[in-house]
Amino acid sequence: MYQETDPGFTSAEFHARVSRAQELMAKQRMDGLLLTSMDNIRYFVGIDSTFWESYTRPWFVLVPSAGNPVAIIPEIGRAIIEQTWIEDIRSWPSPRPEDEGTSLVISAISELPRRHGRVGAELGMELRLGMPVTQLNAIVGGLRGVEIVDGAKPIWLLRMIKSSAEVKKIKTAVDIAGTVYDQVPGFVKIGDSERTILREFRARLNAEGAGAIPTLICRSDVGGPFEITGGPRERPIADGDLLFIDTGTTVDGYFCDYDRNFQVGKETDALVFAHERVWKANEVGINAAKPGVTAGYVFEQMAKALSSGGEYLNSNGRMGHGLGLRITEPPSVRLEDHTVLEPGMVLCIEPALEYEPGKIVLHEETVLITDDGAHLLTPRAPKQLPQIR
Amino acid sequence: MYQETDPGFTSAEFHARVSRAQELMAKQRMDGLLLTSMDNIRYFVGIDSTFWESYTRPWFVLVPSAGNPVAIIPEIGRAIIEQTWIEDIRSWPSPRPEDEGTSLVISAISELPRRHGRVGAELGMELRLGMPVTQLNAIVGGLRGVEIVDGAKPIWLLRMIKSSAEVKKIKTAVDIAGTVYDQVPGFVKIGDSERTILREFRARLNAEGAGAIPTLICRSDVGGPFEITGGPRERPIADGDLLFIDTGTTVDGYFCDYDRNFQVGKETDALVFAHERVWKANEVGINAAKPGVTAGYVFEQMAKALSSGGEYLNSNGRMGHGLGLRITEPPSVRLEDHTVLEPGMVLCIEPALEYEPGKIVLHEETVLITDDGAHLLTPRAPKQLPQIR
Repeated sequence: MYQETDPGFTSAEFHARVSRAQELMAKQRMDGLLLTSMDNIRYFVGIDSTFWESYTRPWFVLVPSAGNPVAIIPEIGRAIIEQTWIEDIRSWPSPRPEDEGTSLVISAISELPRRHGRVGAELGMELRLGMPVTQLNAIVGGLRGVEIVDGAKPIWLLRMIKSSAEVKKIKTAVDIAGTVYDQVPGFVKIGDSERTILREFRARLNAEGAGAIPTLICRSDVGGPFEITGGPRERPIADGDLLFIDTGTTVDGYFCDYDRNFQVGKETDALVFAHERVWKANEVGINAAKPGVTAGYVFEQMAKALSSGGEYLNSNGRMGHGLGLRITEPPSVRLEDHTVLEPGMVLCIEPALEYEPGKIVLHEETVLITDDGAHLLTPRAPKQLPQIR
Repeated sequence: MYQETDPGFTSAEFHARVSRAQELMAKQRMDGLLLTSMDNIRYFVGIDSTFWESYTRPWFVLVPSAGNPVAIIPEIGRAIIEQTWIEDIRSWPSPRPEDEGTSLVISAISELPRRHGRVGAELGMELRLGMPVTQLNAIVGGLRGVEIVDGAKPIWLLRMIKSSAEVKKIKTAVDIAGTVYDQVPGFVKIGDSERTILREFRARLNAEGAGAIPTLICRSDVGGPFEITGGPRERPIADGDLLFIDTGTTVDGYFCDYDRNFQVGKETDALVFAHERVWKANEVGINAAKPGVTAGYVFEQMAKALSSGGEYLNSNGRMGHGLGLRITEPPSVRLEDHTVLEPGMVLCIEPALEYEPGKIVLHEETVLITDDGAHLLTPRAPKQLPQIR
């Protein structure tokens, strides 16, 4: 039955994740990890539910320092959790705002064998709590002799290293996006609006077998987009534009994250020069990403490669990041990030250059760190800009 | 320029939202509202960014008790915020984990005219904080003479009442989904899997002009789905199934949320009886939803209408909810919710019946509360189950 809801992971995979979590918890002196966000629950339980878009009913998973996780979930979710490998399921009739699982969570934490009197929760770096802060406070207030502490360190040390099954999901998402990127010069033409292009791109991702497509950005301006975070506009793409498309497409929750650039009509020498410099900086970053070096070292090498071509895109602030069940995960490829790269990490490497004010060129590729160095997961962007006519 | 990024709202609309927020803040004795979640930022600023999928860089909007909002945002987002009606924009080079906007937020709050020494934040009911809890704690620790309190009351009192421009967005999303629901008997046939149906449904929503489709559920089992929260399965739909499809499709961030049921092949008398009872209970709920009654009253009327047909679906726990920039918003249509209905509220009304163990029938419609009563936004589901062959 289980395979029906989220194919591709065996219960052995989940057992291995829990074991590694428990090793990390022991080192951080924690008796458990309390998890509430979609990606952390999915990581340990394996299910997906778009039902979590609703903030009425929080879901909880408690990973103890020994033994299997406990799911504390609204009754409406019980039938779906029963399909997973989780055996200890506790539920309450929800909505029940006066006790939306709070007393069950307090009980479950109180039952944990107590060695350190500390339980990690999603309080810190690049984490979001999947319940209201007032509810966290009620849980903290209801515990005796157990402290809730920041669980960011064990969570990210765990999730930063991907299993081969996880890498396979990422690779599938990458390949789906790659197929559609290849089609762009065929279906986009001068005069199409950003909205139209984005809609067609999304349709093709869907047809190729994508799951949710949480991120899809399409920006185009003369010589390069002036910004790369906003929604699509009605603006038609025109001769002289650089068209930038970036997608975080998922397969069973795992993201790809890479962009592609397309020259619309005729390019300028300045753009060709900038594009080549960013492409080469990406090559430098890919070659630099080896086990044992820091994320900051990878940044530094790319910054050097870019520096003679103008100011690198400071407003971006980094040139890459981890990738997995979230579109960005630690580490950050930035000078001050001293995370040492290890086999199993999946990194997006994305140098960018604002080669003239308001004209951005950004290249992004994704690599798996292996014993031998960086193994490209993305099909390498062509050195010459593909053209749209 | 602004219209290009999020068409449909004038700056007058945003001014009106801020004015109402300020009235509510005065009543709740707050000097400001600090907002960090996507939907609250979008509500006051008007922009959309799928970039917010990344948890590396938090975004903040501070709505003061007088005057216009302040945006405190990572530099990478500056260019897009400059396209909006917001004039006071403060930014920092992000990522900067040691101060990810914290000092700017503390300064902005400290500059607020101080009447009550209280600023509301997204701490409570049906809210999620858009920054790490440790960062909230750092902000609280850095403030002198200003307390951060739960802002749920003014936020929801404000957002529960929709403007006509907001209702128009919801209605557009409803109509897009309605068009595709009408097509279901034409494109679904016995033997299709839930995955296939869902993929085709999504493609058609996209083709009809949908924005993001955060929620799309397709479940089918003999006589009715045994649960309605999980992802799609490979299971082919078969003669005797009830096929349940539910979608939260958006237009400029505003959701529709309604399901449709389809009989696959031949139905049983028990299902026909249950279906008719739920359909009628929905009618009772729609008629009960008038200004001046409580959400609990609407629930009670539907519960009575369902009660002679078996146990109503207890695990669901409510029979409806508000709708807007989130797929579920307060109030809850449940007995204990004493929220008084007012013109401008948009409510999903969804009675459900587990007419036999593991066989669920659920009907959902969406209404706008007006002076005259409930005005249907959804095309009313047919009284007889549409058939798939």
